[in-house]
Amino acid sequence: MTLTLALIDEARRALRGVIHHTPLERSGPLSEALGVDVWLKLEGFQVTGSFKVRGALFRLAQLSGDERARGVVTCSAGNHGKGVAWAAKRLGVRAIIHVPSTIDAAKYAGMVACGAEVRVSDQPGYDETEVIARAHAAEAGLPFVSAFDDPWIMAGNGGTMAAEVLEDLPEARSFVLPVSGGGLAAGFARVVTARVPEPTIVAVQHEGSPGLLRSLERGAAVTAMPAVDTLAGGLEGGIGRGPFEVLRDRVGRVTLVTEAEIHDAFRWMIDTHQLLIEPTAAATVAACRSGRVGDLPGPVVVVVSGRNVGGDTVRALLRAS
Amino acid sequence: MTLTLALIDEARRALRGVIHHTPLERSGPLSEALGVDVWLKLEGFQVTGSFKVRGALFRLAQLSGDERARGVVTCSAGNHGKGVAWAAKRLGVRAIIHVPSTIDAAKYAGMVACGAEVRVSDQPGYDETEVIARAHAAEAGLPFVSAFDDPWIMAGNGGTMAAEVLEDLPEARSFVLPVSGGGLAAGFARVVTARVPEPTIVAVQHEGSPGLLRSLERGAAVTAMPAVDTLAGGLEGGIGRGPFEVLRDRVGRVTLVTEAEIHDAFRWMIDTHQLLIEPTAAATVAACRSGRVGDLPGPVVVVVSGRNVGGDTVRALLRAS
Repeated sequence: MTLTLALIDEARRALRGVIHHTPLERSGPLSEALGVDVWLKLEGFQVTGSFKVRGALFRLAQLSGDERARGVVTCSAGNHGKGVAWAAKRLGVRAIIHVPSTIDAAKYAGMVACGAEVRVSDQPGYDETEVIARAHAAEAGLPFVSAFDDPWIMAGNGGTMAAEVLEDLPEARSFVLPVSGGGLAAGFARVVTARVPEPTIVAVQHEGSPGLLRSLERGAAVTAMPAVDTLAGGLEGGIGRGPFEVLRDRVGRVTLVTEAEIHDAFRWMIDTHQLLIEPTAAATVAACRSGRVGDLPGPVVVVVSGRNVGGDTVRALLRAS
Repeated sequence: MTLTLALIDEARRALRGVIHHTPLERSGPLSEALGVDVWLKLEGFQVTGSFKVRGALFRLAQLSGDERARGVVTCSAGNHGKGVAWAAKRLGVRAIIHVPSTIDAAKYAGMVACGAEVRVSDQPGYDETEVIARAHAAEAGLPFVSAFDDPWIMAGNGGTMAAEVLEDLPEARSFVLPVSGGGLAAGFARVVTARVPEPTIVAVQHEGSPGLLRSLERGAAVTAMPAVDTLAGGLEGGIGRGPFEVLRDRVGRVTLVTEAEIHDAFRWMIDTHQLLIEPTAAATVAACRSGRVGDLPGPVVVVVSGRNVGGDTVRALLRAS
């Protein structure tokens, strides 16, 4: 199976009526800052609080009855795990989710609340934890569900989101996307490069984990990156080989953001938009505010990926301002 | 014009494709607390950050071309004003909005950003400010747009919201609604008493401003209440005569909540649901958490009315926990 527009259409049909078509909201302050109309795709208001349920639900729906009963193994910094846990509960699939030791409290609680088996690794980083999860899956003879390097995940996560955006705002021309493993960005880019004339795709990464940027420089996927001390755990890790093949000729620029810029953007979203988002989701906003995103043809769509942030993190970030 | 189901259908048609069908999200913790399925109607993710734009847009769409150019006067604790400002900008109507001196910073900024003329009164309470606004409208010969005592507002605010809820969850049986002027609750109750067999409608009020409760005791609308020192300004004030006529035989019970319970519920929504809501919107959640809401047939729908809260208020409330 490869990532095709037909697969993305199939994903849309599979998700329709089950999960939300999330709001696209114009941002006055970002429109003013960039000099063009800027819209926020608010994936925090998706079921499970992030876009990851899109791909998880579509992926688990492909399992046979026998596979559902035996279960799947996955690895997640939080949101993919919560999406898998939610989809697994709905479809009657046993799910075992490996998470890094630095897992956000809200994300951990969300997975457990859905009835998933959550195993906290002794590693703080995503990539090291994935090694453990894959070994477990191989040993137990269970399928490993990648959070990004999987055509169904790419079609669900980024493909269906982009299709919704173009339904709501067909005239959109630039797209600011968060990238770590690349599943969201690949599915999203696949749709907009097919349907939008000369789209500009901006990939946003944490400066401490610039997997896509390194991959573009080397011409090959850099699939592992060292762990970063960050509240934006969803931005950690190398890029998947499958997503990189989709993204290498489609991404127009990569903007790196710092940890401090992410924290500032988190606070700014509360102060100016009254939106609580998770630090990972604040990265795209930070990129737009940094000035380093460059001139963008409008309208611009900025993906705001989720809202799963623990209360202690919220308090700490607000105290620091 | 009176509040009819036909008027509510007309409001739905007028709003379709212009503003959002907001998400209905199951709350695991509240479902556990009440022993039945509990769903949150998340009106914070409406355009303008609250439900008030529903009625404002429908109401202003009734104006003649001449009236649009001359303008309207209204009075608001914030969200109605923001809704009127947004609708006025869209429809090309001049809007003058009187607000109490205690206006929330985020709400004030939202109105100004839409280009409305905002006049801050020297009175801290809603009712006293409305007297000033009505006098101004009379003097200037402009229509006064009530935030609640108006059939178009009731149809838009509560009627279209209830219709959405029943589209998403036709089996809903109990409805927990915030009440101050009563526009939301009246429109909502009009729909559910027509379409749901034996619905239970719970009205939630601030203990310092129990206008509906007093009205039910007296058998007549108590249209003004003294100002309250509260962060939940949207719950202040007496009830409208029109809304009271709709609500008097439809509301099953009134639950009063304290300021401290509202603050707790505000924090609890961040900690357990990762949702930033305004203190006014936390009142219905507080009622469910208080135990005083009583046994409710499920599924239960809890209206969470908006997200417009200033960053300083967020910081102060989180510091206090």
